[in-house]
Amino acid sequence: MSKTDPGRFFEDFRLGDVLHHATPRTVGEADAALYLALTGTRFAVNSADTFAQSIGLPRAPLDDFLAFHVVFGKTVPDVSINAVANLGYASGIFGTPLYPGDTVTARSEVIGLRENSNRQTGTVYVRSQGFNQHGAVVLDYVRWVMVRKRDPAVPAPPPSVPALPDAVSPEALVLPAGLALARYDRALAGGRSGWNDYAVGERIDHVDGMTLEEAEHAMATRLYQNTAKVHFNLHSESKGRFGRRLVYGGHVISLARALSFNGLANAFRIAALNAGRHVAPCFAGDTIYAWSEVLAKAEIAGRRDIGALRLRSIATKDQPCAEFPGKSGDVYHPSVVLDLDYWVLMPR
Amino acid sequence: MSKTDPGRFFEDFRLGDVLHHATPRTVGEADAALYLALTGTRFAVNSADTFAQSIGLPRAPLDDFLAFHVVFGKTVPDVSINAVANLGYASGIFGTPLYPGDTVTARSEVIGLRENSNRQTGTVYVRSQGFNQHGAVVLDYVRWVMVRKRDPAVPAPPPSVPALPDAVSPEALVLPAGLALARYDRALAGGRSGWNDYAVGERIDHVDGMTLEEAEHAMATRLYQNTAKVHFNLHSESKGRFGRRLVYGGHVISLARALSFNGLANAFRIAALNAGRHVAPCFAGDTIYAWSEVLAKAEIAGRRDIGALRLRSIATKDQPCAEFPGKSGDVYHPSVVLDLDYWVLMPR
Amino acid sequence: MSKTDPGRFFEDFRLGDVLHHATPRTVGEADAALYLALTGTRFAVNSADTFAQSIGLPRAPLDDFLAFHVVFGKTVPDVSINAVANLGYASGIFGTPLYPGDTVTARSEVIGLRENSNRQTGTVYVRSQGFNQHGAVVLDYVRWVMVRKRDPAVPAPPPSVPALPDAVSPEALVLPAGLALARYDRALAGGRSGWNDYAVGERIDHVDGMTLEEAEHAMATRLYQNTAKVHFNLHSESKGRFGRRLVYGGHVISLARALSFNGLANAFRIAALNAGRHVAPCFAGDTIYAWSEVLAKAEIAGRRDIGALRLRSIATKDQPCAEFPGKSGDVYHPSVVLDLDYWVLMPR
Repeated sequence: MSKTDPGRFFEDFRLGDVLHHATPRTVGEADAALYLALTGTRFAVNSADTFAQSIGLPRAPLDDFLAFHVVFGKTVPDVSINAVANLGYASGIFGTPLYPGDTVTARSEVIGLRENSNRQTGTVYVRSQGFNQHGAVVLDYVRWVMVRKRDPAVPAPPPSVPALPDAVSPEALVLPAGLALARYDRALAGGRSGWNDYAVGERIDHVDGMTLEEAEHAMATRLYQNTAKVHFNLHSESKGRFGRRLVYGGHVISLARALSFNGLANAFRIAALNAGRHVAPCFAGDTIYAWSEVLAKAEIAGRRDIGALRLRSIATKDQPCAEFPGKSGDVYHPSVVLDLDYWVLMPR
Repeated sequence: MSKTDPGRFFEDFRLGDVLHHATPRTVGEADAALYLALTGTRFAVNSADTFAQSIGLPRAPLDDFLAFHVVFGKTVPDVSINAVANLGYASGIFGTPLYPGDTVTARSEVIGLRENSNRQTGTVYVRSQGFNQHGAVVLDYVRWVMVRKRDPAVPAPPPSVPALPDAVSPEALVLPAGLALARYDRALAGGRSGWNDYAVGERIDHVDGMTLEEAEHAMATRLYQNTAKVHFNLHSESKGRFGRRLVYGGHVISLARALSFNGLANAFRIAALNAGRHVAPCFAGDTIYAWSEVLAKAEIAGRRDIGALRLRSIATKDQPCAEFPGKSGDVYHPSVVLDLDYWVLMPR
Repeated sequence: MSKTDPGRFFEDFRLGDVLHHATPRTVGEADAALYLALTGTRFAVNSADTFAQSIGLPRAPLDDFLAFHVVFGKTVPDVSINAVANLGYASGIFGTPLYPGDTVTARSEVIGLRENSNRQTGTVYVRSQGFNQHGAVVLDYVRWVMVRKRDPAVPAPPPSVPALPDAVSPEALVLPAGLALARYDRALAGGRSGWNDYAVGERIDHVDGMTLEEAEHAMATRLYQNTAKVHFNLHSESKGRFGRRLVYGGHVISLARALSFNGLANAFRIAALNAGRHVAPCFAGDTIYAWSEVLAKAEIAGRRDIGALRLRSIATKDQPCAEFPGKSGDVYHPSVVLDLDYWVLMPR
């Protein structure tokens, strides 16, 4: 029996397979501090226990995208170690927040398989779930990746592509237990605008830029125990497609979120990930900028203190966003690296 | 209402304004560990709970300059986001130490305003205070910065410059509650010399050098939630004054303090910041060296176990300090980057 | 009395000297998280409290090599600050695991001295021990280093070289208190193979490569409060032997260990360090690969759930290990940077 795990190739996946991912991980304040040091995020709920307690939470939860990355990282060795590309996300719902001391485990179910016409690769759809040590769902999302075949000659199963919604329904959003915003302090949070102040169609330039360093994205990605080789191995990547290491797309998501503080300081919770596309690769030395558009607003049933905003955040590289570089028809502005569609919660 | 905060320009400040800064922050062991990993500091009181307990503290407090940076960082979005230069510090008193689990908030009062003759900029003087979650003062200091005007044509208020002392009076120094040095172990602390062994006028070369990396200063500065753009945005800075990102001056203070261990290992507590000048900018790749001079010695009323040293520490770049490069008349040696005047506490 | 400590030169060591090292250090979850972010390690026992508890430990212990580095770091200012080279290790036994909240202290005894024939340097042998705050031995090991003489003319003591075993006897290995592997979950740990599945002579290519960054090795080395100048000072090293900063050899050990997860995922505990040689220096930009050979297998007296493997792990730079580059006679393959001989514990 070979001791080394080569990871799954396209023909190793079977529809309905449930993959129990390795390496449970107890997260803590150190993950929060490192995340802050690596992204520069400033959302008050994740920064201060006192602020979190003022809105009914037991203490500061870990950043929602940090939770996402930890769950995502666990899936990599089983799902995407032989992937060519991470193609998309859908139906992502953030459940119970992660708190310091919680232990994360994850599993994925194969919910779709479709060989590509070149027979060299195929698309694998997985629904992944992350849990805390009590079995509560922390995150539940679908992603699909293009995975290499070990042997192009192996016949593929009949194509099966899951039906996926364009966006998570606002009714499906999960409010953290105990959440109550009566004492939410906007001055402390760093932004005057609440849910009532945003209009559908409104665009917000987040102004600032953050330059990526090799050590930073690599540290972030290792913190999530994400093992995708393209992020770490200069020796092999120097001979590869880009001649250098690729930044984990999730790190760009985190930078876009951190930059969005300037304009969305009160978007204190990521509630859902509707869709996401890593439009172009990022590398060390790139400076990430971002802007957002309000796609929709939704009330939360039975709540007058809180509302949901559906946002589209676009991240660019080496391109300020005062003119909102985006997509014309099917063509993205050449600076765009990320197109993310998600729900946030905000005080009204 | 614009969702993005452009920060205050000179004409937005009013004498007597009190600015309540955003983003409370719960600090912890992770901040201490990151600070250690980023600066290489080795002071025993901040490194080990057992050592701290041996001198009457509940556990290892966070490094004093880490506390400084966290408070300073909070003031940046409100005070210096549109600053051209950080001009000076005065009257800095370190109060209650920060311990893991404490939550820091900060506020600043505008205590002076003076437009510059070019009418493009003005100097803003603020007294900033950081507090823990019990309202105890962690740090109280004055700094002044040169801030851009939004519109040079706007008339300025009458000039008002606060009277500031050359140095904090030794009587004003704060001893942490419970502090008792009878069991202070110099061997464990790593230095033989105590307060009695230092003489006014004595100069100490701290010998070692520490090279700055882009990822390191950026991580440190983000850890403090300091948002000054010059530290993070290569895309914009590459077109700016220096063609590259500027290192946060506070990081250089921390490196000088960490280097000063070799010669000042028993200077276990920063008690006051009398004055400070960032003489020249630092960049990734620079190697920081430091030396110190004893400016004064002061007894602490009623204490035979502890004394205060007033130190001047000079940091240089790419210049060892065996010959004590400093200031001749008004002219600094070209290698000097920092000139810091402060009080430390030491066992006698 | 000079305030600055120049460190010991060869002639300052006396056989039988006991050096009590400075700077006790309380380690914690943050050290574990930083270690993970800097090395990419994924061993489940060190990653999750729940997993550690499932095998009888109170919570996740810190990585064994992290414990090693913290102890090693303390010895540097007293033992090797004036060293030319770190020559070897022997008789390393890992005792009580380190847990978050523990405080590490260390001491070393000089057990051998031998001047080199050039009279410029000599070899110093020390037995170093690290302790937790209860006085329990965390690590006990011998290393020898080549140290400069301050004055070549000073006569050396008669040569004394300690007898050192080739390897730690399996009977001497220490099992952490409470350890019981009945509930060890290999799927969660990420590897199917246990002690029974490995054969003496078996070779395992760990496949992956990890590129070193300047900021990463410097942060790791500072985290251990290791003060060896060659790792930090570009200004002086740029004029030195290699023209750049040298990576702490221990960081390469940690990377080799982290890479070995792919093939040795169930080697959950380093039990002993038999020998180690830093065959060649490493620098930022190098990509580390590794492979291992099973040198021996040993049962643990009275235990049917656990066994010990004696491993030799070879790390290379910029050279994948599918062909197991190693040593032919006395000559190493030019890519080899580390040759490490150690015992691990594994479920049977």
